[in-house]
Amino acid sequence: MLQNRQQILTGDRPTGCLHLGHYAGSLQQRVVLQNEYSQTILIADLQALTDNGFNPGKVSENVLNLVADYLAVGIDPRKSTICLQSALPALSELTMYYLNLVSVSRLYRNPTVKNEIESKSFGGSVPAGFLTYPVSQAADITAFKGELVPVGDDQLPMIEQTNEIVRKVNRICGKAILLESKPLLSNVPRLKAPDGKNKMSKSMNNCIFLGADEKSISAAVKSMYTDPLHIRVEDPGCIEGNIVFEYLDVFHPDKQLVFRLKEQYQTGGLADSKVKNILNECLQELIKPIRIKRDELINDKAELLSILGQGTAKANEITYKTLSEVKQGFGLMNV
Amino acid sequence: MLQNRQQILTGDRPTGCLHLGHYAGSLQQRVVLQNEYSQTILIADLQALTDNGFNPGKVSENVLNLVADYLAVGIDPRKSTICLQSALPALSELTMYYLNLVSVSRLYRNPTVKNEIESKSFGGSVPAGFLTYPVSQAADITAFKGELVPVGDDQLPMIEQTNEIVRKVNRICGKAILLESKPLLSNVPRLKAPDGKNKMSKSMNNCIFLGADEKSISAAVKSMYTDPLHIRVEDPGCIEGNIVFEYLDVFHPDKQLVFRLKEQYQTGGLADSKVKNILNECLQELIKPIRIKRDELINDKAELLSILGQGTAKANEITYKTLSEVKQGFGLMNV
Repeated sequence: MLQNRQQILTGDRPTGCLHLGHYAGSLQQRVVLQNEYSQTILIADLQALTDNGFNPGKVSENVLNLVADYLAVGIDPRKSTICLQSALPALSELTMYYLNLVSVSRLYRNPTVKNEIESKSFGGSVPAGFLTYPVSQAADITAFKGELVPVGDDQLPMIEQTNEIVRKVNRICGKAILLESKPLLSNVPRLKAPDGKNKMSKSMNNCIFLGADEKSISAAVKSMYTDPLHIRVEDPGCIEGNIVFEYLDVFHPDKQLVFRLKEQYQTGGLADSKVKNILNECLQELIKPIRIKRDELINDKAELLSILGQGTAKANEITYKTLSEVKQGFGLMNV
Repeated sequence: MLQNRQQILTGDRPTGCLHLGHYAGSLQQRVVLQNEYSQTILIADLQALTDNGFNPGKVSENVLNLVADYLAVGIDPRKSTICLQSALPALSELTMYYLNLVSVSRLYRNPTVKNEIESKSFGGSVPAGFLTYPVSQAADITAFKGELVPVGDDQLPMIEQTNEIVRKVNRICGKAILLESKPLLSNVPRLKAPDGKNKMSKSMNNCIFLGADEKSISAAVKSMYTDPLHIRVEDPGCIEGNIVFEYLDVFHPDKQLVFRLKEQYQTGGLADSKVKNILNECLQELIKPIRIKRDELINDKAELLSILGQGTAKANEITYKTLSEVKQGFGLMNV
């Protein structure tokens, strides 16, 4: 029964703890999807190394943080397979084969990579592993026969690149060994940071983490960007670009209340401090059980390792099977 | 005792049977080296795929040809480890780590790759696997802790690239996990084809193969380029660029005889046909036992596979050990 479920491949780079942006953008969705799909969550440490190659410690130390985050939000290892990319040799092996099927100029034309190269200011020295990471990503997706891949729309070129490789491999093999995959677009816009300017990003140190304590949640909400022209309570306020309302939209369970608050704020008579209090309460309630669970988990590293080990063992079976199908399809030798 | 021998890594791309050019340039040397060194001979099918990615069958079908060629010339699997690159996952895994430590522009500056890209006329579509193959080669050399790598001088940039990676990895790990390697330059100039214009090359169909039959050896010698101005026997002839003498220099065991023949040819009075007869006899004698042995071997595929399997198993132990040292040095997780 479970065997016939559609395969979903998703994951994160272990470069820091997960935060509310991840919660809204993907974690919540995964908790739901694991009931209907066969979901694999790949901790993409190899991919994280493509721009942290000289600092592997940063990547390694965050692997168990991710496992703890996943479990704390309700991802169930009996339903989802949590696994570690660097412990799955078949992914590297598939990457080696796929690298021969993609031209360097095609990689440079990938819009996602292009933007990332610009924003990361590698200058003239883009690491070869970074330029080629879409190929490694194609190996990930195809190794798990991922049919659905949850992505933001900035990641669509990755699916396109993957499907190009799928078609090439299947043409060489003369049969459909690999599956083309489809994007599963998230309906949540990317969460902005409290300052309202940037996206929430580990590297910008502007995150509300899933393990955040009460004080730092309150501080983050207090500092949130609202309507700078909304000086007196009785003045009408603007909700566009008002981060407090953006967060209420995403996180508050009572949508009617949020609707009424917006009306009142726009009419005049609703203080920023009051709206912030409501958001603070909401976020405290949301994060508290996650934090408690997470604290428990992070103190039992052996258990986290065991869960990761079991998921990785299962993933090794699946990915080796695909690798061996591809090698057989290519007519390569089995010694 | 054997453990302390210096490590040599060498190998070939399985894109065709081996020929006299390989015999003179590397095989003969390997037969000697295996008595003094710990020699690994890697059948580089992954590397062969970097410019045959869409035609993997061509690569696969030549793997056992290479094993037969090796054994036929006297490479002893009890002394040399013969192994298959694609069956050594640690090599792909190391490649993934090293790709992050080398910039794309550094790869484009590699003179060997630059020349090969030009000569192979990939045009705008150099496969990513081809551009990055020096990194994969660095993985091969370092995984076996190769201290000596027999190369032609056109391959020196590969050793340089490898040693750059070695230094980077050791710096990240804070200790000397990998070894720098040294080239072992061959003293035999690259053997020209019988036409005297090109090098002997599988792709140009101008080879004298190690399995060549009597007739094709004779035909190749008969067609050999000599001195086109040496019309009458009594005329003085020129030995520079005279392929028959180049081959005699390389292959004839009696160096004094060759010296006398040269003198006589330059003075006048020695017919091309006579020199060619001497060369033909010499090559027939050289190739006959190789051909007989090779014919026997190629009919026992199970035995060839078993030898390759045993060598590959041994190589897997060695390469996994290096991989695990590098991963530990990087502080990566072991799940």
